[in-house]
Amino acid sequence: MKVLAIDSSNQPLSVALLDDQKILFTTTMTAHRKHARYLLPIIQDMFKKSSLTPQDLDRVVVADGPGSFTGLRIAVTTAKTLAFTLHIDLVGVSSLLDLALNVQNEGALVNPIFDARNQNLFTGLYQIKNGIPQSIIPDQHVSIDDWTEKLSKYKNQFLYVVGNADHFKSNLKHVFSDHLIVSKGINNLPQAANLGLFGENKTPVSDVNKFVPNYLRLTKAEFDWKQQHPKAANKDDQSYVNEYTAKI
Amino acid sequence: MKVLAIDSSNQPLSVALLDDQKILFTTTMTAHRKHARYLLPIIQDMFKKSSLTPQDLDRVVVADGPGSFTGLRIAVTTAKTLAFTLHIDLVGVSSLLDLALNVQNEGALVNPIFDARNQNLFTGLYQIKNGIPQSIIPDQHVSIDDWTEKLSKYKNQFLYVVGNADHFKSNLKHVFSDHLIVSKGINNLPQAANLGLFGENKTPVSDVNKFVPNYLRLTKAEFDWKQQHPKAANKDDQSYVNEYTAKI
Repeated sequence: MKVLAIDSSNQPLSVALLDDQKILFTTTMTAHRKHARYLLPIIQDMFKKSSLTPQDLDRVVVADGPGSFTGLRIAVTTAKTLAFTLHIDLVGVSSLLDLALNVQNEGALVNPIFDARNQNLFTGLYQIKNGIPQSIIPDQHVSIDDWTEKLSKYKNQFLYVVGNADHFKSNLKHVFSDHLIVSKGINNLPQAANLGLFGENKTPVSDVNKFVPNYLRLTKAEFDWKQQHPKAANKDDQSYVNEYTAKI
Repeated sequence: MKVLAIDSSNQPLSVALLDDQKILFTTTMTAHRKHARYLLPIIQDMFKKSSLTPQDLDRVVVADGPGSFTGLRIAVTTAKTLAFTLHIDLVGVSSLLDLALNVQNEGALVNPIFDARNQNLFTGLYQIKNGIPQSIIPDQHVSIDDWTEKLSKYKNQFLYVVGNADHFKSNLKHVFSDHLIVSKGINNLPQAANLGLFGENKTPVSDVNKFVPNYLRLTKAEFDWKQQHPKAANKDDQSYVNEYTAKI
């Protein structure tokens, strides 16, 4: 099975091409945030250097959130377009789970973190079981104070922190003390190669067209609109877009 | 400090560009063995995508063996040429240590392995101390039987195996039983990003021109020549090349 994996959910852009669990090509870059500019050239280059074409693909695996709104839209739109045009499977995997895949220690508690600014983070708690991260506390957008409270019951265990945790290290250290293990170097970056290996065995989405990222928070525009339209607060997530579109 | 790191010592080709411990760009490919064809275009592409030029570099770090003769020569020649022409530092790091960098567990015993065919391997034993692999048993070209004998005194500890260990897994399992932990996915491949991070703090070579790979075994031509010239057996490693050159 030939798999293309993409993670551009945050500042790093990571892309990989795999064939039957063999990593043919994997690239991760953090040099800048121009994901829209570089994603397709990187994919094209991988196909060329691997003597493959997009038509050889069987599946696209994408990190589907949480993360940056723009980053997620670039990855998910590219993945959907490829899956739709090539008539192949599309698999979405949590961007936090992708980071957690960097820890392979059986039984380890893994805490992937994206800094969501203003003392908030996107995070979740995973435990490695049979080599695979299993969700223990669901992915969420949460304040660091609320998150450390949720983690406090695990304070006697070792916690492996992965990702952009610089702003939160002291809070976590306060709870876990010497049991805090912070990943370094490439293990602190999303690696699409791991995403592709994981996604090869997951169930694909049933309707490619309806696939959307898991933002886990509202955009500022949506938030403001809901504030101004309290009666619409219980409508589904499309209400903002639908009513806005109806006006123009 | 801007660092270019290269590892083409075996089938995978891995290249990374770093700036002050930040990984700007890292690529690892296994799609084929055409390292000579793809190494320079990959380096060029990294500079372009990172908006840097070779003149911005402060240091080149190269995995200097053991490994494939051709692979090592490609990486080392490229690294030497860049260091010489740009007047920058050159650092050589064991290719086995580069693999060991994939394990970050403090205290872990790490056994990086390259298959050297005919039941032989290039290997060494490392232990992670303060996050850095320290050599416990030196890198060597050894038969699997001799190697498992050397490892037997560690059989009650956990052994983290990294690299191309498929042919030797049963032998190691025989010694370490449930204490054998075999790395998976990208953690089984050399990652030049780790090499660059490690090499940033190492002492550079004093004479770039005299820098040679650590093959850890003779080429077949050298071996045959030494067999035919037993009196030359104690000469230094250059004797084969020098006497051959003198003839032509």
